[in-house]
Amino acid sequence: MKQLTQKKVVLAYSGGLDTSVTIQWFIDQGFDVVAVCLDVGEGKDLDQVYDKALKMGASECHVIDTKEEFANDFVSYTIYGNSMYEGKYPLVSALSRPLISKKLVEIAHETNADYVAHGCTGKGNDQVRFEVAIKSLDPSIKVLAPVREWTWSREEEIEYAKEHNIPIPIDLDSPYSVDQNLWGRSNECGILENPWAAPPEDAYDLTVNLKDAKEEAEELLITFEEGLPKTINGQSYPLHELILHLNQVAGQHGIGRIDHVENRLVGIKSREIYETPAAKVILTAKHDLETITLTKDIAHFKPVVEQKYTEQVYNGLWFTPLSDSLRLMLKDMQKPVSGEVRLELYKGNVTVKGRQSDNSLYNEKLATYTKEDAFNQEASVGFIEIFGLPTKVKAMLDQGVSIDD
Amino acid sequence: MKQLTQKKVVLAYSGGLDTSVTIQWFIDQGFDVVAVCLDVGEGKDLDQVYDKALKMGASECHVIDTKEEFANDFVSYTIYGNSMYEGKYPLVSALSRPLISKKLVEIAHETNADYVAHGCTGKGNDQVRFEVAIKSLDPSIKVLAPVREWTWSREEEIEYAKEHNIPIPIDLDSPYSVDQNLWGRSNECGILENPWAAPPEDAYDLTVNLKDAKEEAEELLITFEEGLPKTINGQSYPLHELILHLNQVAGQHGIGRIDHVENRLVGIKSREIYETPAAKVILTAKHDLETITLTKDIAHFKPVVEQKYTEQVYNGLWFTPLSDSLRLMLKDMQKPVSGEVRLELYKGNVTVKGRQSDNSLYNEKLATYTKEDAFNQEASVGFIEIFGLPTKVKAMLDQGVSIDD
Amino acid sequence: MKQLTQKKVVLAYSGGLDTSVTIQWFIDQGFDVVAVCLDVGEGKDLDQVYDKALKMGASECHVIDTKEEFANDFVSYTIYGNSMYEGKYPLVSALSRPLISKKLVEIAHETNADYVAHGCTGKGNDQVRFEVAIKSLDPSIKVLAPVREWTWSREEEIEYAKEHNIPIPIDLDSPYSVDQNLWGRSNECGILENPWAAPPEDAYDLTVNLKDAKEEAEELLITFEEGLPKTINGQSYPLHELILHLNQVAGQHGIGRIDHVENRLVGIKSREIYETPAAKVILTAKHDLETITLTKDIAHFKPVVEQKYTEQVYNGLWFTPLSDSLRLMLKDMQKPVSGEVRLELYKGNVTVKGRQSDNSLYNEKLATYTKEDAFNQEASVGFIEIFGLPTKVKAMLDQGVSIDD
Amino acid sequence: MKQLTQKKVVLAYSGGLDTSVTIQWFIDQGFDVVAVCLDVGEGKDLDQVYDKALKMGASECHVIDTKEEFANDFVSYTIYGNSMYEGKYPLVSALSRPLISKKLVEIAHETNADYVAHGCTGKGNDQVRFEVAIKSLDPSIKVLAPVREWTWSREEEIEYAKEHNIPIPIDLDSPYSVDQNLWGRSNECGILENPWAAPPEDAYDLTVNLKDAKEEAEELLITFEEGLPKTINGQSYPLHELILHLNQVAGQHGIGRIDHVENRLVGIKSREIYETPAAKVILTAKHDLETITLTKDIAHFKPVVEQKYTEQVYNGLWFTPLSDSLRLMLKDMQKPVSGEVRLELYKGNVTVKGRQSDNSLYNEKLATYTKEDAFNQEASVGFIEIFGLPTKVKAMLDQGVSIDD
Repeated sequence: MKQLTQKKVVLAYSGGLDTSVTIQWFIDQGFDVVAVCLDVGEGKDLDQVYDKALKMGASECHVIDTKEEFANDFVSYTIYGNSMYEGKYPLVSALSRPLISKKLVEIAHETNADYVAHGCTGKGNDQVRFEVAIKSLDPSIKVLAPVREWTWSREEEIEYAKEHNIPIPIDLDSPYSVDQNLWGRSNECGILENPWAAPPEDAYDLTVNLKDAKEEAEELLITFEEGLPKTINGQSYPLHELILHLNQVAGQHGIGRIDHVENRLVGIKSREIYETPAAKVILTAKHDLETITLTKDIAHFKPVVEQKYTEQVYNGLWFTPLSDSLRLMLKDMQKPVSGEVRLELYKGNVTVKGRQSDNSLYNEKLATYTKEDAFNQEASVGFIEIFGLPTKVKAMLDQGVSIDD
Repeated sequence: MKQLTQKKVVLAYSGGLDTSVTIQWFIDQGFDVVAVCLDVGEGKDLDQVYDKALKMGASECHVIDTKEEFANDFVSYTIYGNSMYEGKYPLVSALSRPLISKKLVEIAHETNADYVAHGCTGKGNDQVRFEVAIKSLDPSIKVLAPVREWTWSREEEIEYAKEHNIPIPIDLDSPYSVDQNLWGRSNECGILENPWAAPPEDAYDLTVNLKDAKEEAEELLITFEEGLPKTINGQSYPLHELILHLNQVAGQHGIGRIDHVENRLVGIKSREIYETPAAKVILTAKHDLETITLTKDIAHFKPVVEQKYTEQVYNGLWFTPLSDSLRLMLKDMQKPVSGEVRLELYKGNVTVKGRQSDNSLYNEKLATYTKEDAFNQEASVGFIEIFGLPTKVKAMLDQGVSIDD
Repeated sequence: MKQLTQKKVVLAYSGGLDTSVTIQWFIDQGFDVVAVCLDVGEGKDLDQVYDKALKMGASECHVIDTKEEFANDFVSYTIYGNSMYEGKYPLVSALSRPLISKKLVEIAHETNADYVAHGCTGKGNDQVRFEVAIKSLDPSIKVLAPVREWTWSREEEIEYAKEHNIPIPIDLDSPYSVDQNLWGRSNECGILENPWAAPPEDAYDLTVNLKDAKEEAEELLITFEEGLPKTINGQSYPLHELILHLNQVAGQHGIGRIDHVENRLVGIKSREIYETPAAKVILTAKHDLETITLTKDIAHFKPVVEQKYTEQVYNGLWFTPLSDSLRLMLKDMQKPVSGEVRLELYKGNVTVKGRQSDNSLYNEKLATYTKEDAFNQEASVGFIEIFGLPTKVKAMLDQGVSIDD
Repeated sequence: MKQLTQKKVVLAYSGGLDTSVTIQWFIDQGFDVVAVCLDVGEGKDLDQVYDKALKMGASECHVIDTKEEFANDFVSYTIYGNSMYEGKYPLVSALSRPLISKKLVEIAHETNADYVAHGCTGKGNDQVRFEVAIKSLDPSIKVLAPVREWTWSREEEIEYAKEHNIPIPIDLDSPYSVDQNLWGRSNECGILENPWAAPPEDAYDLTVNLKDAKEEAEELLITFEEGLPKTINGQSYPLHELILHLNQVAGQHGIGRIDHVENRLVGIKSREIYETPAAKVILTAKHDLETITLTKDIAHFKPVVEQKYTEQVYNGLWFTPLSDSLRLMLKDMQKPVSGEVRLELYKGNVTVKGRQSDNSLYNEKLATYTKEDAFNQEASVGFIEIFGLPTKVKAMLDQGVSIDD
């Protein structure tokens, strides 16, 4: 009979203080804890996390390298959709939450756990993203959020950790709260909570300061196929490796720093520092390639679809029919977005030097002002007459002028 | 009786070859030509233009300094609306056309002219902007477009000019076609017609190359009142002077270069180079100030209004009821956008270092993760339950789970 | 010292069972209860409500006729904006909540009460509308929701009522939950909770069944000024009286029944029956008048503004800067909407027979196919060439056709 | 050598006066004329049209029954998208133009014709729809529009017809200009050009006057699968037959009359009378079924996609990448829209009596106010606190209230 067996919880485990304390706290409450740690490209030592989870008392620890899946199934649509929440934030953490939720639910099913847990606080977006995603994957699973539930101060948490021989991280006095994956790094808290204060250098990790950026400009030739980057300077990469490579390259040029006061889903404004070097380069190049490969009507309507999709993902609504439909449409709109873009990276700047495509709708013979011009300028007379007709009729009405005048 | 008097045309006169030839061409056709030359901040020698117009045969020349009116009545709404056509182009020429049209019509009325003329070709946006604007201001006025009408090659035009002693400009062999006002400078034609070719340095005038930009970063403190910039580093300026000043300052840092393949109203894509140093600084700072002073619901809906307004102006529909309503709304939404922004200009970058406002909706006590935290984290549990309910119900349906399970 | 004085609560009092029990429940908790009852056009006997409130134990009862204010300041914008939530529901209850909230807060200030209370349950929209509106008017006031707080079944509530000599309404066994004001009547619960069941006749009150509607068609001539109805068949009315009159007239023709499964703000779908006879007539006529008085670009953009405004009001966000801006724009767009509309009411149908306006942009000389035709058909050739150019360029690319072919 | 062969034109032939005259006119100009006549459900005698085309001098006549293709490939997406141009017009003629264009181009390719021709005038939308569609299918084909090109008055056209023994239709003195297909019938011209005049009865053909409608209400049970109607009262039909059947049934109840002053693409307003009985029934039922089967976020975003799709089709942009993407998304959003709707037709009214679906997201246990209620009302407290937080913060700022107060 189920109710007699021990309660089992699958926990998203990061190896940090909060989730380490959480393991002990669950054990105190009589839970069997299954730890899950995903590699989404944050560059963590997963062996160490594995060992620590077991040492903290987890009965199992699942460590999974999901970088490829993360890039192909989650980041890709962000590239298709030029996703920028509030025009600034390329959805770093918002992208990993649905993937982590999916893995948590899968492991809960494999291990017959009735509970899933995350380590989020009660005032961020991530708690919503986890809980809504998990419920959409299995509406009968129970979600626990110990960090939100216990009402400890930082001091009480450390006290508890010491009592239970939970190692205190050496960077404990870091004022920052960081999340990272291959699409970027977010940072908040500490001095950053004052939006008038400039972020100190130690708030950054993936990018150098503009003043310390390389003196030499670096040229990149990026090719795209149907909206996704495929090669850099002639070398082809799987998407996740291409992104990690570009983070390196562009970070040294100080590219991709974002300082944003953002409207959270939970009703507050918060100041966030992001570093997204690869995202900045890829989205700049891809958007530029769109200017020659997309028709004007798509170019003008796609931002509507993009904004809606971005909000859906930001708000944790990844696994919904609307998000599915939006992904379908965004991917469909990218079919012609193949070609190449020449870029220069220099001191924080990503400058497009040229773009070309077999699917280019730019027609030099129509655009040129030379004698090659194939544009029928006489057609403009009729165009303007009809395009301007409603405005003229309105003016005639206002000024009492008849059409015959 | 009117029909016996000489036909009179009011011509938008720039002093360049096209409009100088146009004066002679109109005289050939029996017109009395009234030349009009506006200063919209392009830095032209207006005395010289005045003299030239008369020398070319114009019976009158009206030279008007409209910089202040241009900034206050036309550029201002672009600042309110963060106008960026296709996310890239801050509407430089599109802003001056309605002002010039207004002045042409006023002078036509003053001088009893039945005709108004511009010097645009038949494949650009400006012909539409002029003609629609003029018709909306006076639907019974007749608009002439000689450059579109005559079907001369460049060589034939020069031939005609020589025959009539029209001076050939020394920069005749410049491949570029330039338009400029205080909000920026646009450039097209020549090598720029190849979107794979990088723009040569001589395509730029207001900005230095990034490699030649000042070595020292420069800090600016800009204050805004209800959406418009008022002071820079403590010094207050009228809007038009502030913009001209910022063009100088930011241009030396290589700020504001834009390379864009754009969808024209007349159905073609064209590659344009823009330089908008002041616009880049002002819009970056103002948009940042909006992040703390606008509510989330305005921050998320304003882009819809902005995009529509930008398209209206780009398409030459300045003098329409919709544009009036959009301006009313954009201005209204800017009421709380007062405060100050600290910026650093450096090698093409405009970096916001801090922003503050008496109208700031950022609430540190709600945002903080310190013990000052005033956010009720327990409320999140109920919020997530209800926010996620539709997704859960959908999942229950798909998985055959009952609400009671 | 404030904390020694009796707690005082201002209660939105309807005279029904729930709010009568609420008075007693507050008294039990040591509150001094100030009852407030507004007339928003629901046709209640206010004297009786006043007496009952005092009899139930309220220390004061404020009865206020707000019909005129309700029509002028709240319903009017719904008319400007053609508000229809999800295309079906003209925002009946959603309109009265902000007005009631405003009066509650005013009386709380007048009577030095720290608390305000409403009688809503915990699963509807109205609790949100009240609480958000009240907080936006006075963020320090405390809002109580006893019906949501007590966890009584219907039987327990009646038991409590009997114990305290609270009169049990004679329609207690009515299965329905009704709300009404001059803009309409909503009904839910009982058999209506089954969306496959047709609403029984007793679910309706303002309208007759189509089969029982008048046999004679009735013609109405309604004049509008700047978007609002002013006269009916030559007789002028203040807005609130005009609406009440039209409810009578149109209700007899079976006009204005709505059966809608609607998405509530709180995450569930609910089936609602609405009766809005006057709204149906006014919005049909007004929208028709817009077809001749609004420019095409306004006609195509206004629905975007309308949808956003409708959602704001539905979601209880009346007193927000975005709603203010939207109202400003909607009202501005109505300036030309003056004129008259001829309608026929017959068996549920509102048929427009004709519309005319001094501001009409319909131009018969441009529209006619007779020899009066003033439209320049030759202009269409140029228009089509340029309008179709992007499509042609795309086709040339796809089919390998050159522009010269 | 091609230039020596006779010019060949493929003409969209209706059998009416204009296109009959066109055949002769083309022969006069030395063309070989291939007539094409499609049956799109307008109920024409195609044998007669065939004979007439040949008699008029066409060298070939292709008569094609495209009703099934029209319904399945063109009307279907209008049903998915609830298409209503300006909220009123379900795109009748706008739907057949791309199909006819496709057939014209196919036959031009089969018959090696370089020219395609239509019989539209120069002031309607249809000329644009034909020409843009044809160019998008074959950008090198030449499109001719004789009726726009010749500048005859009606009298001159008849004169020409008489001279060439072209039969003059007996309804020549009909003031109306009609177009019809299975999705509906449009009518314009004559007295209809006066928007103040009520349409006379002879303007209608598919529907009876409300006063003459059947006395008995008629109940219909319509089942839908993935957004399309499949059966009526238990009988299944192919889509085109279902529509034709419903036109009959609903027309007798006076259902589907539309009187609309509409904004044409070519810059004018025109007054149109439409009859769309089947469309009215199908779209009413389908939209109602969507209320229980679509999630709220789809229900609120789909109208944006719908409006854009409707404008694309209205504007003749059927064969464009944007329209393809919109169709893909609309169809995808219809996957859950299966179920059944009970309707009553009576005197112009289509009243939904009930709707049900295996995919229904309406959850009675969440919606009910009975003791079965499974909704957690306590969650609302947290929801409202967070949902209302931005509004409260704004109010605190405005009123100088601190978060601690």
